[in-house]
Amino acid sequence: MALAEFDLIQRYFAKYAPQQAQNRLGIGDDCALLSLPVGHQLAVTTDTMVENVHFFADVDPTALGHKLLAVNLSDLAAMGAHPFAVTLSLTLPHTDEAWLQAFADGFIGLAKQQGVDLIGGDTTAGPLTLSVTAMGSLPQGGALLRSAAKVGDLIYVSGQVGNAGLGLKIKQGWACSEPDLPLKAMDKPHPRIAEGLALRGVAHACIDISDGLAADLGHILDRSEVGACLEWERVPLSAPVQEYIRLTGDWRMPLIAGDDYELCFTVPAKRGDLVPAGCYCIGVIQAEPGLRIRRAGREETIAAKGYEHFF
Amino acid sequence: MALAEFDLIQRYFAKYAPQQAQNRLGIGDDCALLSLPVGHQLAVTTDTMVENVHFFADVDPTALGHKLLAVNLSDLAAMGAHPFAVTLSLTLPHTDEAWLQAFADGFIGLAKQQGVDLIGGDTTAGPLTLSVTAMGSLPQGGALLRSAAKVGDLIYVSGQVGNAGLGLKIKQGWACSEPDLPLKAMDKPHPRIAEGLALRGVAHACIDISDGLAADLGHILDRSEVGACLEWERVPLSAPVQEYIRLTGDWRMPLIAGDDYELCFTVPAKRGDLVPAGCYCIGVIQAEPGLRIRRAGREETIAAKGYEHFF
Repeated sequence: MALAEFDLIQRYFAKYAPQQAQNRLGIGDDCALLSLPVGHQLAVTTDTMVENVHFFADVDPTALGHKLLAVNLSDLAAMGAHPFAVTLSLTLPHTDEAWLQAFADGFIGLAKQQGVDLIGGDTTAGPLTLSVTAMGSLPQGGALLRSAAKVGDLIYVSGQVGNAGLGLKIKQGWACSEPDLPLKAMDKPHPRIAEGLALRGVAHACIDISDGLAADLGHILDRSEVGACLEWERVPLSAPVQEYIRLTGDWRMPLIAGDDYELCFTVPAKRGDLVPAGCYCIGVIQAEPGLRIRRAGREETIAAKGYEHFF
Repeated sequence: MALAEFDLIQRYFAKYAPQQAQNRLGIGDDCALLSLPVGHQLAVTTDTMVENVHFFADVDPTALGHKLLAVNLSDLAAMGAHPFAVTLSLTLPHTDEAWLQAFADGFIGLAKQQGVDLIGGDTTAGPLTLSVTAMGSLPQGGALLRSAAKVGDLIYVSGQVGNAGLGLKIKQGWACSEPDLPLKAMDKPHPRIAEGLALRGVAHACIDISDGLAADLGHILDRSEVGACLEWERVPLSAPVQEYIRLTGDWRMPLIAGDDYELCFTVPAKRGDLVPAGCYCIGVIQAEPGLRIRRAGREETIAAKGYEHFF
């Protein structure tokens, strides 16, 4: 990390003091130093957002700062990890103080809310690119892995799906009678950290829904070498998503659209009553490979393909 | 991390199996899981490289892969940390298989040489931007901090300075009679990990020279609230750098030019014989603030300003 980088990061971000005692040394040396509780492992994830790929040039910078951190914390939530530290790499075409302050407000606002410290970073001139590495702790052997689903497990989601997908359609011109909820779901997703922690010792497999329910559940099925059947009537949908489906007939949208950042997880039936409130049981893990959905008395196969940013 | 990202990272990078037993789960779940030895802390650093800022479009991709990892490992070396894991975020304008393979060869070649595992990453379409977060371990309380220099400490560098700076001048047209060493110093810096480990319990303060000897030693002086005097005749210079100075009179270049990635560190005089072989004593820490250099019988002040990528 170089001199001007400190200046920039310090000006907008470093006024927020570390919240975690284990983060001993933050921005300003060659490295940050972190400690882990005894008997704990470190969970690490990284995600990058690029202008015109993940967001538009006119994005609200506060929402962007929030979302950049949220998508990374969501990966930690999906492992059942307790997030405590993040690094931030900013590549910026120019220095726009108002933009940076608004971006920092969104980023640090969520960080403070979740007790996460910004422990280091890097700023560079160049096309707008934002990269975060997030770190969390979890008890040794306690991670919720994609590979851990078992035949007979019940499948849950932590909240409604399709809201962020509808938000994107609204941005693209869809006339929605209640646009606020879908737009907020797209712009300011809520990472399900509390739910991930509550699922330690309860869930078998877990993933966060970034590419779409079908695609992300598909990752669990692939890794666990199992299949699944969903019940269409049990998939939680908001009123605006129900309206969209009624008007278009496109009932697959909430299964395929990404960016919801709800958790999808599997739980052995006998532990169903330990699932946190607000989660919905939507199906069951089966031995037969593939992903199926039962809807209006018929069962059909869903292609486990989501949105891909590349190729 | 999303599906296509795995495909890309897996195709070029994941054929290299983890080398460290503590890296339990690598690329392919929501997060990677790492363990730290008992009584150890985690050191974390992040650095980004952007086309046309840190490298030119015609850069040799193998050298670029090497350098991207090297500059991050160099930050760990400067703390005395033992590097064990890195994440890589690639933003690529298009998929050029030959380029990617050459880049991966350079990156993984150095990773294998240093026993470091690539534990996760992210690939996105966009302007060429490369971001690494590197993690290392070190005994609790054992980090070599910038703030730890004491009056009377001897100042050392781990090798010659100015070679990478001369390499850049050669790229810009300087006719050098021996260009190989300076160009290699610029393109394929060697992170001084072994030296950093050997300095645990020996050095007080330590930093890696990325912004130039004067600027980086300046960080130690600022943080430690001390000053320093260097002896010009003791600063180790290669033959081509000596030639450059003879022909141009620009003797400050090796003090100001960046990118050498040698370590600069301070050691109490009584531990001077514990300094690793190949390091050079170039001066002393003094109580009087500021950075001075003694040259040809005269002492003058050096501005502690290096290359800044931004503003």
